[in-house]
Amino acid sequence: MEKLRIGIVGYGRIGKSVEAALGTSEDMVCSGIFTRRDPATFNRETGGAAIYPAAALPQFKNQIDVIILCNGSSRDLPQQAPVVAGMFNTVDCYDNHAELPAYLAALQAAAKNSDHVAVAAAGWDPGLFSVARCLFSAVLPGGASYTFWGRGVSQGHTEAIRRIPGVVDACQYTVPNMDTLAKVGMGSREKFTPREMHTRECYVAVSPGADLEAIAKTIKEMPGYFAPYDTNITYVSSEELTKNHSGTPHGGLVVHSGETSDGQLQMAQFQLNLGANASYTAAVMVAYARAAARLAAGGASGAYTCLDIPPALLHPQPAQQLAEGLL
Amino acid sequence: MEKLRIGIVGYGRIGKSVEAALGTSEDMVCSGIFTRRDPATFNRETGGAAIYPAAALPQFKNQIDVIILCNGSSRDLPQQAPVVAGMFNTVDCYDNHAELPAYLAALQAAAKNSDHVAVAAAGWDPGLFSVARCLFSAVLPGGASYTFWGRGVSQGHTEAIRRIPGVVDACQYTVPNMDTLAKVGMGSREKFTPREMHTRECYVAVSPGADLEAIAKTIKEMPGYFAPYDTNITYVSSEELTKNHSGTPHGGLVVHSGETSDGQLQMAQFQLNLGANASYTAAVMVAYARAAARLAAGGASGAYTCLDIPPALLHPQPAQQLAEGLL
Repeated sequence: MEKLRIGIVGYGRIGKSVEAALGTSEDMVCSGIFTRRDPATFNRETGGAAIYPAAALPQFKNQIDVIILCNGSSRDLPQQAPVVAGMFNTVDCYDNHAELPAYLAALQAAAKNSDHVAVAAAGWDPGLFSVARCLFSAVLPGGASYTFWGRGVSQGHTEAIRRIPGVVDACQYTVPNMDTLAKVGMGSREKFTPREMHTRECYVAVSPGADLEAIAKTIKEMPGYFAPYDTNITYVSSEELTKNHSGTPHGGLVVHSGETSDGQLQMAQFQLNLGANASYTAAVMVAYARAAARLAAGGASGAYTCLDIPPALLHPQPAQQLAEGLL
Repeated sequence: MEKLRIGIVGYGRIGKSVEAALGTSEDMVCSGIFTRRDPATFNRETGGAAIYPAAALPQFKNQIDVIILCNGSSRDLPQQAPVVAGMFNTVDCYDNHAELPAYLAALQAAAKNSDHVAVAAAGWDPGLFSVARCLFSAVLPGGASYTFWGRGVSQGHTEAIRRIPGVVDACQYTVPNMDTLAKVGMGSREKFTPREMHTRECYVAVSPGADLEAIAKTIKEMPGYFAPYDTNITYVSSEELTKNHSGTPHGGLVVHSGETSDGQLQMAQFQLNLGANASYTAAVMVAYARAAARLAAGGASGAYTCLDIPPALLHPQPAQQLAEGLL
């Protein structure tokens, strides 16, 4: 069997995780890594796929089946993804919920025009959690869906703290509110405020002489990030931060509860407990890269999300084997 | 918007639940119920869709968009489903895992030949649980998947007890083994025997003078059903059985655990806690009937399972709205 030739654009945490995930995928090979940094600065003595300057990407048009886009959602992907989808099948884990419709429209135009498949937002949320929300509410449209995140490290909230003057390093955990989780688990279909859904735990290392009260105030009053939540701040040393808070666990759960017309409570739940966020996200993208290649081979083109893709297309086993062993 | 016209074949517990679920689906209408019993024996004074003899089904060829097949997997569906798929788009909740490949092959031939869509095995297991198993193992193919059922009432096991001479009535609960569940929840990827995965709780009412020891022995040694499990039997009165054990709760969970190449444990779980089995199964079939109609409208034909169907096709909301609100 011909292996799928996968390219990686963006060689940060996610890009390196995708490279590692491809190494364990028997039906795929990493055919090149593309970065805006100088390829010579990477030590490849221990092997691994070749690293090329991002500008070289167009030269690989007939040598790569799917590009996995591993750059950031806020600045890179909105510019980059439609350009790459004009040349290749793509997969990304774009995660800006509010901007998704516009992002999808741009991708749709580019990918339709170039006759490629662009799979967007293929991480775990948006991504697998979206699939769960869709299935659950399709089955019981009158029910209520809740998404809890964590306990896990939010990179965005961590970065927001790190930018405060006097802060040396930080780690922010998003934590589901256990009382609310318990209510939802019992079938409550109330509306909950952000404050009732999640709390925020911050571990912060500061420079000598920093004003702890001022920093705490700045964090707790930060609009959007912290103001709508109960926020707990613990000051720790840089050493403790490195020792106890350098992991990136994450996860969460989608809960849907509703009643069928016989008045019976029906509860559905989809949960992830991830030891490391980036490596699981990478594994999800690799599975959707398989789907992108299969969709394209079947003649499809345009923008797709996880909601548009049959689950079997993600799986390395052929359909017949799935029907026999997994269905 | 034209409502989808749905027909129901088989008017037992599932058929009645499908009728009720259609009553709460704004985009669907029940256009007829087809039964092998005499339609005159049903009291329809309180309203509801018309009931027809099963033999009248071919006359409705252009008046029904999708037939939901609500008869049993063991005797009815293998004969009936390919015949109906020769005339209509169909959905069923066929649940005989071992015979699924042969069943799908027969459906594929019939539905391809008649240019219809036949969605098979669209309940919660097989069905939604199959989707979870597929997604989880597609993302981490090297991991281990476990499916636990219950705590819930198994109709098949309950019937097997009822057939024993001296038994008046019974109720059998399938119960996940909590020790094994805890091990799996901690990331264990051992193999477990059926006995280690589930126990069986039987509540049995017997006729006066029945030989309790003999009945217990017959139950516990029944091949397939009880012999591979630890089985607990409690004798109760018929009244207590009716009072405390006439519900049909069910559910279960799919757990997948695996490691990404960074050595991190990644756990995924899909769980259902169902107040009533039949009414949730019916709600799942109704959602897949929507998908069947959309697939057929898009020009598709042949046999499909939940693994072959994009999640968005199940949902009453259009794709654009899903991208904005749910993705």
